[in-house]
Amino acid sequence: MKLVSESRSFGGSQRTYTHRSEVCDCDMRFAVYLPPQADKGQVPVVWWLSGLTCTEENFSVKSGAQRYASELGLALIIPDTSPRGEDIPDDESWDLGTGAGFYVNATQQPWATNYRMYDYVNEELPTLVNKHLPIDPERVGISGHSMGGHGALTIALKNPKRFRSVSAFSPICAPTQCAWGEKALSTYLGDDREAWNEYDACELIRRQPLEVPLLVDQGADDDFLEGQLKPSLLEQACADSGQKLQLRIQTGYDHSYFFVSSFIGEHLRHHQPA
Amino acid sequence: MKLVSESRSFGGSQRTYTHRSEVCDCDMRFAVYLPPQADKGQVPVVWWLSGLTCTEENFSVKSGAQRYASELGLALIIPDTSPRGEDIPDDESWDLGTGAGFYVNATQQPWATNYRMYDYVNEELPTLVNKHLPIDPERVGISGHSMGGHGALTIALKNPKRFRSVSAFSPICAPTQCAWGEKALSTYLGDDREAWNEYDACELIRRQPLEVPLLVDQGADDDFLEGQLKPSLLEQACADSGQKLQLRIQTGYDHSYFFVSSFIGEHLRHHQPA
Repeated sequence: MKLVSESRSFGGSQRTYTHRSEVCDCDMRFAVYLPPQADKGQVPVVWWLSGLTCTEENFSVKSGAQRYASELGLALIIPDTSPRGEDIPDDESWDLGTGAGFYVNATQQPWATNYRMYDYVNEELPTLVNKHLPIDPERVGISGHSMGGHGALTIALKNPKRFRSVSAFSPICAPTQCAWGEKALSTYLGDDREAWNEYDACELIRRQPLEVPLLVDQGADDDFLEGQLKPSLLEQACADSGQKLQLRIQTGYDHSYFFVSSFIGEHLRHHQPA
Repeated sequence: MKLVSESRSFGGSQRTYTHRSEVCDCDMRFAVYLPPQADKGQVPVVWWLSGLTCTEENFSVKSGAQRYASELGLALIIPDTSPRGEDIPDDESWDLGTGAGFYVNATQQPWATNYRMYDYVNEELPTLVNKHLPIDPERVGISGHSMGGHGALTIALKNPKRFRSVSAFSPICAPTQCAWGEKALSTYLGDDREAWNEYDACELIRRQPLEVPLLVDQGADDDFLEGQLKPSLLEQACADSGQKLQLRIQTGYDHSYFFVSSFIGEHLRHHQPA
């Protein structure tokens, strides 16, 4: 992996790397925050998965997470949201293709060659960063926003022992039951809805809840709340299966990073209690 | 003034407004953060002037200032850095024209009609926001970054009673003695260097220091440090004139908003001590 940029931030180091991804068959970028504590040994880490249209940059520059990560001694790993490049298949709409990988392994052409974000985020990138950065592979949390909240929940649910903590902001709770998800899953996975269920948090929770609780924040004034995100479906799935859930509907907040930044401190403390 | 967008942030309100500027003869945008305390009455305010290429958005989304402003009960006013629009004169380079108003009143054509950012930031916009927002016109601080640090220092120095607190990040300390400043001042003001001195913080400090101290943070690894920013000239001017200055050279930090966000909390506490 090759360092693209580095800036000092709250006594630690904010970095962007690029590397050749075998899984996505292209060069990929990701961002890292290493807190000052990483100078002295391995630190726990939180993975952040971003939403539609984002790159590794949005959370890095907009969330203000570094302040809390520096205080708590947490590393942050922030992947891109899709393969991207001139030779990578894309779609003219913003909710498909570039910036919209949905954290699945595509099975349909022309997507299947590159759009393997599930394996990328779940296997290839962890192996890479665990090898090269001072992060503790046993103390790992995961979080994300919107499409990335969906990614965080589904990856945690499909790997029940791997994460010691899980949270999400404004997640797409049931992609098999909303327009964003139906469009992406049908395109990447084809018409078989059984295949879609492998990437639906509510479906996965009903099959096998996690031992750790889920912390989910949702803005009450989010324009996508009822049409796309549907936290009531998550609430019901958790109630039905015994999954512990702390769902907080935050009055007045919308879908933006102004919402994320207002509560990211509480989420990072959830991932790394004092 | 017309509300363009509003997002809840740390219990307060982050807004973007547009309005017709008589001074700049065009529509202008600015951003505002109102802390929760503004619901109950007038709050003190800090003006933030941004650097080259910025709009009102950069500081709003990248600084993380809202967290501290919410805690301290401070409003933030964040103007754009130049007039802009299809009919507004521009230059193909990024350090002149759009995004590069330098907080001066241009006297040379074609700039003089619109590029009157000194009067805009110093008179027209304060009058407007004082009339329409719950901010206290007697408790006002000013700060900024790079070109905006230059703007904050010069506007404070030219209005010695107006600001109760002044700070800057990585300011252009002596625009009459660096390439950025020489290019902008010669273009906007013509060849008479006497006219340039009216917008040079070091020159103004030698004429009449402020009663309040200046807090200035500068990254030691800033690529523009020696060539453009020249804090040593500021230090010398303050020493010569008796201007109180706290100049902090911060090890490892660069010119980015990762630097600003790391210390904006300390600056806002300087503007609104507990």
